[in-house]
Amino acid sequence: MRGVLDVPEALVPVQGLIADSLLSVEKVFDEHLAAELPPVDQLCAHVERYRGKMLRPILVLLGALSAAPESAGLFEAGREGEIVSDELIRLAAVCEMVHMATLVHDDVLDDAELRRRGATLNHLKGNEAAVILGDYLIAGAYHLCATIGRSDLSERIGRVSMDLCAGELLQLHHRGDLSLDEPTYFEIVRRKTGTLIGVSCELGASLVNAPPETAGALYQTGMRLGVAFQIRDDLLDLTGDEQRVGKSVRKDLEKGKLTLPLVHHLGACEPMARGRALELIERGARGMSDAQERELLERLGETGSVEYAESRARALVSEAQGQIATLAPTPARSLLDALAQAVVDRAL
Amino acid sequence: MRGVLDVPEALVPVQGLIADSLLSVEKVFDEHLAAELPPVDQLCAHVERYRGKMLRPILVLLGALSAAPESAGLFEAGREGEIVSDELIRLAAVCEMVHMATLVHDDVLDDAELRRRGATLNHLKGNEAAVILGDYLIAGAYHLCATIGRSDLSERIGRVSMDLCAGELLQLHHRGDLSLDEPTYFEIVRRKTGTLIGVSCELGASLVNAPPETAGALYQTGMRLGVAFQIRDDLLDLTGDEQRVGKSVRKDLEKGKLTLPLVHHLGACEPMARGRALELIERGARGMSDAQERELLERLGETGSVEYAESRARALVSEAQGQIATLAPTPARSLLDALAQAVVDRAL
Repeated sequence: MRGVLDVPEALVPVQGLIADSLLSVEKVFDEHLAAELPPVDQLCAHVERYRGKMLRPILVLLGALSAAPESAGLFEAGREGEIVSDELIRLAAVCEMVHMATLVHDDVLDDAELRRRGATLNHLKGNEAAVILGDYLIAGAYHLCATIGRSDLSERIGRVSMDLCAGELLQLHHRGDLSLDEPTYFEIVRRKTGTLIGVSCELGASLVNAPPETAGALYQTGMRLGVAFQIRDDLLDLTGDEQRVGKSVRKDLEKGKLTLPLVHHLGACEPMARGRALELIERGARGMSDAQERELLERLGETGSVEYAESRARALVSEAQGQIATLAPTPARSLLDALAQAVVDRAL
Repeated sequence: MRGVLDVPEALVPVQGLIADSLLSVEKVFDEHLAAELPPVDQLCAHVERYRGKMLRPILVLLGALSAAPESAGLFEAGREGEIVSDELIRLAAVCEMVHMATLVHDDVLDDAELRRRGATLNHLKGNEAAVILGDYLIAGAYHLCATIGRSDLSERIGRVSMDLCAGELLQLHHRGDLSLDEPTYFEIVRRKTGTLIGVSCELGASLVNAPPETAGALYQTGMRLGVAFQIRDDLLDLTGDEQRVGKSVRKDLEKGKLTLPLVHHLGACEPMARGRALELIERGARGMSDAQERELLERLGETGSVEYAESRARALVSEAQGQIATLAPTPARSLLDALAQAVVDRAL
C-alpha cells in the first residue's frame, strides 16, 4: 500500500483512493490529539513518528468499500469515493489510535528502546510519560469514536480493547512458562493482535450498514490475517536483524515469551534435544551469545519449526482469502485479497 | 455516606436509596470485568479491594436524583427510586471504573506500595500487570458506557479522560519544577481530579434529561468539590501519617511534586527562608529525616501555608454549595450539600 503494493492496472484507482483517504486519516488523528498544552503536544508529535503501514485504517476503508450494499454500482460508475465519509475517516483514525496506544504501552512492558528506527517514547521520556501518553491515546480513540454517534461501534471498540488487554494479561501470566502449549499461544495471539485487526475489517462494513453476515465474514478475515501477521512478527523477532527490522529484536526470549516456532520445537524434538533447547531459551532471558543464538536457530531448523510457523501463517491467510472470496466482486475486494497475499509474501 | 455521614432524619430514606444503589453498582462493576480467564479475574479481584467511599458513583446518583425534571414530585410521593434505572447504575459504575484505572496507573507512576491499607497491584504483581490492568479497566469503562446507548455520554467520558491524562502529563512535566506557580498548580488539579468528579455530577443529570444549565451547574459543583478534595489529599500526603491515611504518604515530595502549601510558602517567605525551604524540598526527593520533615512543617506554619491551602479548599466548597443551592429543593439536594460540607469537615 501507499505504492508499496505492486497492483494490477485495474486496482490503481482504488489504491489511489485509499492513499488519499489515509492523508485525511492522519490529519484527523493529529488534530484530535492536539491539546494546546506543549508538554502533551510534544509527546503526541513523537508518537506520530511511530506511524507505519497504517494497516488498520486501510482495512477499515477496504472493509467499507468492499461491503457497502451499493458498492458494486458505485465502483462501476467510478463513484466509490462517495463511500469514504467523514465518519469512515474518523473510524479509521480510531483503530489506528487504539493500535498506537498498544504500541506505546507494549514498549514500556518490553523495555524496548527502538521502534521504526527511532527511540521509543519510554526510552526517550521515561516509562511514566509513556504510560500516561498511552492512556491519552486510548481516551482519544474512544472520544473520537463516540463523535461518530453510533453506540454500536463504540461498544465493539470497547469490547475488543478489553479482549486485547486480557490477551496481554494472559501473555504476561505465561511469561517464563516453558510448557506453554499451542492452543494457549493462539488464544493469546487471537486476543492481543487478531481482535483489533478483525474489528478494523468489520467496523467499516458496519458503518456503511453492510449485512451482519458480511461484517462477520470481514471480522473473521481480519482475525486470521492478524494472527498470521503476529506469527510473522514473532518470526522476525526470533530470526530478524535489528537494523533491517527497524525495532528491537530478540525481545520475546528476553522477556520469557515462547512463540510458535519454539512451542513447536519443544513439542517435536527428542528429550535430550529438548533439555538443551530449554537451557538455551532460559539463557535467552539473560542475553544469549551469538553462538548460542545460532545454535538455537539450527536446532529449530532440525525440527522444521520455523517452516511450521510459516505454514500456519500461510494457512491462515489462505482461509482469510476464502472469506474474502465470498464478498461481492469489486476492485476493493481484489485489493483486500492482494493485501492478504502480501502478508504471506512479506511484501507489506 | 454508607452510614459514614451523620444525616438528619429527613435524609435517611435518600441515603438508604444511595446505599442500596451502590450495592448494584458494585455488582455491575464486578460482573462487567469478569473475563473467564483466571489471570485476569484474579487481578480484578485485587482491584476490588481498592474500593473506598465510592464518591463518584454517589455523585452520579445524586446528580440524577437532584436534577431529574420530575424529581421533586417523585420525592414527595416517596417514589424517588424510579429515577435509579439500570442505565444510571451502569453510568455510576463507569465513573468508578475510570477512577480505579487512574488509581492503578497512578500507583505505578508513584511507585506506591500501599493503598487502602493493602499492597498496591504494582507492588504485588509488578508494573507490567498494573499497566495492562489499568488499560483493561479503561476499556471496560468505555465498553460499559457504550452499552447505555447514548453517544453524548460516551463523548463526555472520552473527553474528560483526555483532560485527565493531559493533567497528569502536565504534572509530570512540572516534576521537580520548584518555580511552579499557583495557576499551573490549579490547572493540573482541575484536569487530573476536577474533571472526573465534575462529570460524575453532570452525567447522572444528563442521563435523566435534566436541562443543560442544570447539568452544567452540577459539573461546576463537582469540579470545585474535586479540586477541594485534591487539596485535602495533598495536605494529607504532606502532614498525614501512613497508618492513619492508609496509603503511602510523602510521595509528592519524593516525586518532586509541589503542592499548594509549598507553592504558597515559597511565594510568601523571605529570600533566606526560601533558600532553606528549597533545600529541604530538594532533599525530599531523596528521603527526609524526621527532623527535616518537622522543620519543613514548622516553616510552612510560619507563613500560614497549610491554613492557606485549607482556606482555598473551604472557599471552593462554599462556591460548590452556592451552585447546589440553585437546584430544586429535594432531599437529594440536601444530601449533596451535606456531602460537600463533609469535604471541609474531613468527615468523608
